[in-house]
Amino acid sequence: MSTALIDQLRTIVGDTHVLTDGDLTAWEQDWRRRVRGRALAVVRPGSTAEVAAVVRACAGAGTSIVPQGGNTGLVVGSTPDESGTQVVLSLTRLNAVRAIDAANLTITVEAGLVLQALQQAAEKAGFLFPLSLGAEGSCTIGGNLSTNAGGTQVVRYGNSRALCLGLEVVTAQGEVWDGLAGLRKDNTGYDLRDLFVGSEGTLGIITAATLKLYPQPAARLTAWAAVPSLQAAVDLLGLAHRHLGAGLTGFEVMGQFALSLVGKHYPHMRVPFLGQEDAPYCVLLENSDSESEAHARSRFEAVLEAGFEAGHVLDAVVAENLAQANQLWHVRESISLAQAEEGLNIKHDISIPIASIPAYVEYADALLRREIPGVRLVNFGHLGDGNLHYNVQAPADGDAKAFLRDQEARVNTLVYDAVLRFGGSISAEHGVGSLKVGELPHYKSPVALELMCSVKRALDPRNLLNPGRVVSLEAAADH
Amino acid sequence: MSTALIDQLRTIVGDTHVLTDGDLTAWEQDWRRRVRGRALAVVRPGSTAEVAAVVRACAGAGTSIVPQGGNTGLVVGSTPDESGTQVVLSLTRLNAVRAIDAANLTITVEAGLVLQALQQAAEKAGFLFPLSLGAEGSCTIGGNLSTNAGGTQVVRYGNSRALCLGLEVVTAQGEVWDGLAGLRKDNTGYDLRDLFVGSEGTLGIITAATLKLYPQPAARLTAWAAVPSLQAAVDLLGLAHRHLGAGLTGFEVMGQFALSLVGKHYPHMRVPFLGQEDAPYCVLLENSDSESEAHARSRFEAVLEAGFEAGHVLDAVVAENLAQANQLWHVRESISLAQAEEGLNIKHDISIPIASIPAYVEYADALLRREIPGVRLVNFGHLGDGNLHYNVQAPADGDAKAFLRDQEARVNTLVYDAVLRFGGSISAEHGVGSLKVGELPHYKSPVALELMCSVKRALDPRNLLNPGRVVSLEAAADH
Repeated sequence: MSTALIDQLRTIVGDTHVLTDGDLTAWEQDWRRRVRGRALAVVRPGSTAEVAAVVRACAGAGTSIVPQGGNTGLVVGSTPDESGTQVVLSLTRLNAVRAIDAANLTITVEAGLVLQALQQAAEKAGFLFPLSLGAEGSCTIGGNLSTNAGGTQVVRYGNSRALCLGLEVVTAQGEVWDGLAGLRKDNTGYDLRDLFVGSEGTLGIITAATLKLYPQPAARLTAWAAVPSLQAAVDLLGLAHRHLGAGLTGFEVMGQFALSLVGKHYPHMRVPFLGQEDAPYCVLLENSDSESEAHARSRFEAVLEAGFEAGHVLDAVVAENLAQANQLWHVRESISLAQAEEGLNIKHDISIPIASIPAYVEYADALLRREIPGVRLVNFGHLGDGNLHYNVQAPADGDAKAFLRDQEARVNTLVYDAVLRFGGSISAEHGVGSLKVGELPHYKSPVALELMCSVKRALDPRNLLNPGRVVSLEAAADH
Repeated sequence: MSTALIDQLRTIVGDTHVLTDGDLTAWEQDWRRRVRGRALAVVRPGSTAEVAAVVRACAGAGTSIVPQGGNTGLVVGSTPDESGTQVVLSLTRLNAVRAIDAANLTITVEAGLVLQALQQAAEKAGFLFPLSLGAEGSCTIGGNLSTNAGGTQVVRYGNSRALCLGLEVVTAQGEVWDGLAGLRKDNTGYDLRDLFVGSEGTLGIITAATLKLYPQPAARLTAWAAVPSLQAAVDLLGLAHRHLGAGLTGFEVMGQFALSLVGKHYPHMRVPFLGQEDAPYCVLLENSDSESEAHARSRFEAVLEAGFEAGHVLDAVVAENLAQANQLWHVRESISLAQAEEGLNIKHDISIPIASIPAYVEYADALLRREIPGVRLVNFGHLGDGNLHYNVQAPADGDAKAFLRDQEARVNTLVYDAVLRFGGSISAEHGVGSLKVGELPHYKSPVALELMCSVKRALDPRNLLNPGRVVSLEAAADH
């Protein structure tokens, strides 16, 4: 049976694009190397029609499909299970820029295009494609859309969903929905686009997208501010919204312990206000201006001055040039790497209504310190979006590996129960995958889960698209 | 059977809120008075729990429900059919502002709140709720969301969907989904919110919403420009995007014939550049500035100067004060009224990829003039969103009533076939309702329609919520 299917797949995409032998680690292991699966085959179609044919062939054989982009996901959502019966459908050969429409401010690209290549194509045409995140050199836009990826510019431009005007999707039945018109208004029925965006390949396979472009800002400035408390950071955010309006394109917060790890493991990096005792947090602000650098600078200084006067800012620096700005962003982006240098740790990607963030962190910090003496909290994230990477590092004298093994489940429960208490979400921007699918029933409303299961059953009745991710139909049946 | 249901409904919402006698025109007739239905009863619940109980009671009796907000829709989507067996569920008593969260920039309101009251509540708290449209004094936010209403600020803030962060919905099973957390990032599953937004009450009943607020702009300026062609208007839009960035909050286009109707029927109104021969179109631009009026003015003048230099603008005025700005907007908003004064006409609400709009209009104008000698074309709309109200008025010497009766179907086919040819949509911002549900199969992909039907069947398997609107399950079965 499976030999017949593999022969069929070879006929569809060509022998060289059906991988069954050799080292398939790149497709079978997740980015953080938590799980290693085994695929029946890795199939690399070269066109939308081939994707559709692959889906029909797999459906015919009753074989489930795991769609995969750059395989940089953080929730184990794009690698096969250990059964050896699933086909990994890699979209990376579908990487064309199909069209740029300057009047409509849109770009139409295929799902396998690497995010950085997409950013560059937009820039070359004189526009900005604002989605930006750590993995941008490897992740694909199809993966970004299927996980509704966030990143550092969400406070202004929204997440991947907000940047998408249209999709081309191969359905579970192997049909092609062409929803690429790129219209900014279209009220002719249900919002299928946003249903596929964020569905992690469980409802259909995104093969292309029409995305919003923005004018390139005339100037982009970055500042780094030391703040006396998390509440002061929230207050500064309000000031920045009022003064900069849509000019506010980044607002990141970083705890001093998170920054200390950067200082420790990358001593050549300059970390402003590192260890300043009255400043438990620093904030990175970015201002994009459609006018000029001088204008951007005067607006930015107005925000920081207002922050000083109100006591929300203790000290601040504004980058003098692009190199300095990049250095500041580099510090922010090095936190995860520094954490890894420090040892294994427990990661969270949570969101909380912004006003409640100070109370949440106070509560969760105290709780974790009480429950796990000596625990070290690496708190940083996209405060402008209410999104914290509230990570938990083993005590300094502890065994990180043992800590992860023994404490992860308990720490997750403590953190997620606190998130629930403050009305937040246990996955802000990384998605569900298989890593969090078992947690959802504890933290999401049964009504929402039942609606999700109904949608899944309706669009993929045989449960062949990325089964067990996002919704667990078996668990729902037990419910 | 129906008596038993009515008794049950009276028990749920109280006798005075179940209307069965007297003049029910306000609920039974659509806004444009095209269709008059007959309701079994009009039920006005006062809480979400009552809405849920009403849905359960109706489901128990197998009675279908037509949810209704301000009943200002333009596509006959919120009035009952003629059978006398449907219950109209009016949301207008659910009109509370539940909460304003300044740090999160959100407002949580009930579905029946009138849009203008919502705008005022936001303003009172020091914020902007940017959704703005002609019916704002009567329409409700629940209706706006269920139809994904657009309006005049979409070029900057998006349509209703883009302004919504969360919903509370009563499902077809009479359960309550509380999705009001107001998180700016939440990737824990399928995008149920956007599935209910724009579903016109056919998948669930929106009872409350958490919406985005924006800082009030420091200044808002309005300009009116005469342009030599529709292509020049498109080019000016590109300039405005580049110069103003997110400051561009309005970009409307109006053909001279549309303006001439305003001049004719409201001779006291000053219409700039009316009848100027080298300017077949005028453009209304709005610039919202987070800094100051002086700054807004200098930016605005820069756009217009660049427009003059490039030949995209022939002449322009910038409003000197708010009163003048309101006058300019009033001219734009009076086109529909002036059209009605001129006589019955055939309305369209179409969108086209912006770059193709000049070619579309040239094509459609020529086609209609050839097919219907003497026809008069009232072309205006939200050019910044690619949305035209491409309306068709009877020949000057014709009988408007006979024109509407005899020509509407033919004109719709001509216009919509042209829309299809240029990759557009036959409903940009008004929705489908029952008015366009029969047209969809001709203009939307069968794959999309089948996906829509699958979703409808999954969420409302007994077809009790606003049946026959958006998707026609019977037609799909025949397909």
